[in-house]
Amino acid sequence: MHALITGAAGMIGRKLTERLVGQGALAGRGVTALTLADIVEPPPPSGFSGRLARHAADLAAPGAAAACVAMRPDVIFHLAAIVSGEAETDFDKGYHGNLDGTRALFEAIRAVGDGYCPRLVFTSSMAVYGAPYPDIIGDDFALTPLTSYGTQKVIGEVLLADYSRRGLLDGIGLRLPNICIRPGRPNKAASGFFSNIMREPLAGQEAILPVGEEVRSWHASPRAAIAFLLHAASIDLAPMGWRRSLMMPGLSATVAEQIAALRRVAGEKAVALIRREPDPLITRMVTGWPQRFDTRRAHALGFQAEASFDDILRAHVEDELGGR
Amino acid sequence: MHALITGAAGMIGRKLTERLVGQGALAGRGVTALTLADIVEPPPPSGFSGRLARHAADLAAPGAAAACVAMRPDVIFHLAAIVSGEAETDFDKGYHGNLDGTRALFEAIRAVGDGYCPRLVFTSSMAVYGAPYPDIIGDDFALTPLTSYGTQKVIGEVLLADYSRRGLLDGIGLRLPNICIRPGRPNKAASGFFSNIMREPLAGQEAILPVGEEVRSWHASPRAAIAFLLHAASIDLAPMGWRRSLMMPGLSATVAEQIAALRRVAGEKAVALIRREPDPLITRMVTGWPQRFDTRRAHALGFQAEASFDDILRAHVEDELGGR
Repeated sequence: MHALITGAAGMIGRKLTERLVGQGALAGRGVTALTLADIVEPPPPSGFSGRLARHAADLAAPGAAAACVAMRPDVIFHLAAIVSGEAETDFDKGYHGNLDGTRALFEAIRAVGDGYCPRLVFTSSMAVYGAPYPDIIGDDFALTPLTSYGTQKVIGEVLLADYSRRGLLDGIGLRLPNICIRPGRPNKAASGFFSNIMREPLAGQEAILPVGEEVRSWHASPRAAIAFLLHAASIDLAPMGWRRSLMMPGLSATVAEQIAALRRVAGEKAVALIRREPDPLITRMVTGWPQRFDTRRAHALGFQAEASFDDILRAHVEDELGGR
Repeated sequence: MHALITGAAGMIGRKLTERLVGQGALAGRGVTALTLADIVEPPPPSGFSGRLARHAADLAAPGAAAACVAMRPDVIFHLAAIVSGEAETDFDKGYHGNLDGTRALFEAIRAVGDGYCPRLVFTSSMAVYGAPYPDIIGDDFALTPLTSYGTQKVIGEVLLADYSRRGLLDGIGLRLPNICIRPGRPNKAASGFFSNIMREPLAGQEAILPVGEEVRSWHASPRAAIAFLLHAASIDLAPMGWRRSLMMPGLSATVAEQIAALRRVAGEKAVALIRREPDPLITRMVTGWPQRFDTRRAHALGFQAEASFDDILRAHVEDELGGR
């Protein structure tokens, strides 16, 4: 079994690589080869004894995607993307990376021919949705993105469905929830505070809360995200018909509920490290984000996420803080 | 006022050109210039005294779209498309014409810069929808196309919305109903029979009905389609927010209802010219097509279609048969 990961140098890409190497198997077969691609050369995973290829590749550049699929990977995790903020500030870069790059990858797969039809797991996003929403967003709700990133993800989804319908690849698109608690340093993403106000106090550091405690979002842990990807690579997709993209399960929680979970897990001392510093811009952006989904399709296919924010916190403590 | 029509040599393009020349005005301003583009050079309209440019252009070819927008048309009707059947049988041609061509047009508009922001009316299609459907499809229903053509139309719609949101153009996408009664000779489109069984008997010719009389579709006349386009070029789009594409009003009618209208308008002799010759392939395709929409958004914006099949027949008799 040969797996290709695009975006392998990113947070999810590195965790996925590590997990594939650690478990040594995917979809019931041994992982004998890994191809890791990203705009910078991904680091070599430790402890992998199979065939390894690493590519520093802009998928939209001529020949780059072809090089990534030349060895006919059985499973492709297409995680590479220009992130939301950058796709919004740099119009050309966003369309180049997220539309042209994705299309170039699909075209490279098609060009292999000879019956080649890999499983392709595409990471989409909640950004495919745009307000106004119903209280609970169902699987049949229209995609009306309000960012260029969301627009590009919709295009990736419909291309994925069309290439799948034509038997050129066997694709599934996962609309990921807000991934919380992201490890690492605080970043400037507008959604960063959802992670920051948990991760930093757990490490004894102060964190800024720029919105009110009533703000609600749809969360899943990095651990759940990796489980989504592995599950998506393994299941029979025929029950999906040609509706190949779907919202992943998550946990709808308010900031107040996050803080209450932090209090239960780490005590009042940790909670006291959250400093309230309202930011009108972030507040306005956040109120346009989806808050609650009915993800019955994903549940029927066996996807699962955390049931409480306590679980999300515990996953972080176990996976990032050595259990303490 | 300068109007550009892409796909100007097609049935709708020619009718729209004729209408613009005939009424001499659009959105309350005189039509002083027309640019007509198509893959073959569109015929010159008779009776137009303004500035006329005609382009034989593949919009996706380098420089072609730029040439079409160089004179900064105020309103652009983007009708050009590789039709559904051809986009399905020729994968590359469909994506080239419908995705690359549309994107090249939008990019050419963006490249003009200097605050240029034309009204752009894009013809989308019912093919953006894919079964299974609810009984009545509402404005918030997900787009899940089951053809490459439908996929390409979804991509055009979301690009239109993103370019509009960024102030690069002022776009509206119209999902057209089945256009019935299409003038001209019977064609091989799977949906052709909806028109054939009306138009041919009215002309004293036999027509083949390949499906059962219970088959239902969503219809509007060519006259209504032209009215949609002109209305879309004229109204304030701000109330749409960034949901810039919408299903047009139409008439949900069964084949039996079509035939009953034919009987009322042209008598039993005309109805007797319909020969039943069931075609399992067409029957299977047709059952996957949408049948009924709730088009309240379009109604609220002032779009209107025929209220009965008798009206559709009368429009055909008046517009194509000189009233007889």
